[in-house]
Amino acid sequence: MSLLDYFRASKPKSATIAKERLQILVAHERTARSRPSYLPELQKELLEVIRKYVNVDQEAISVKFEQDDDQETLELNIVLPDFQQDNKQVNM
Amino acid sequence: MSLLDYFRASKPKSATIAKERLQILVAHERTARSRPSYLPELQKELLEVIRKYVNVDQEAISVKFEQDDDQETLELNIVLPDFQQDNKQVNM
Repeated sequence: MSLLDYFRASKPKSATIAKERLQILVAHERTARSRPSYLPELQKELLEVIRKYVNVDQEAISVKFEQDDDQETLELNIVLPDFQQDNKQVNM
Repeated sequence: MSLLDYFRASKPKSATIAKERLQILVAHERTARSRPSYLPELQKELLEVIRKYVNVDQEAISVKFEQDDDQETLELNIVLPDFQQDNKQVNM
């Protein structure tokens, strides 16, 4: 199963209105619980980076965090504004 | 299929030696090809953020970029060092 297929399969079926979406998944396979998870902090920083590129309202972001014995995953789903009226520039 | 399941399924079967891994997936569903993709730039910035938390060698990173008509995905696979000898601190 390719990654594109996974994202297609996970698309909500009821979403008949086309919306731009940005989805970010982070998976951390851990061999030992040696250190506290840094995914929650990482999540904040990832959102800051995303905001350099697109206007994102806080309420347009949904976050899911899953954890089991040796793996943790962070999922960010962002619905982008219908039209990018903003002229945000990325300074490189 | 949950996200944890997806990552489990995509794990290479031959990896008998436990390694810490960090995987980052970004999917951008686009309604129109209005603007050039920002995923390549985003990728650089994401790696900079990751490096604040873990020591990552350039050769430990593999990048895959897929694109079709209305979606593009970026996949970063990072093999983490066996032991985090570094004492990187995150300033909050």
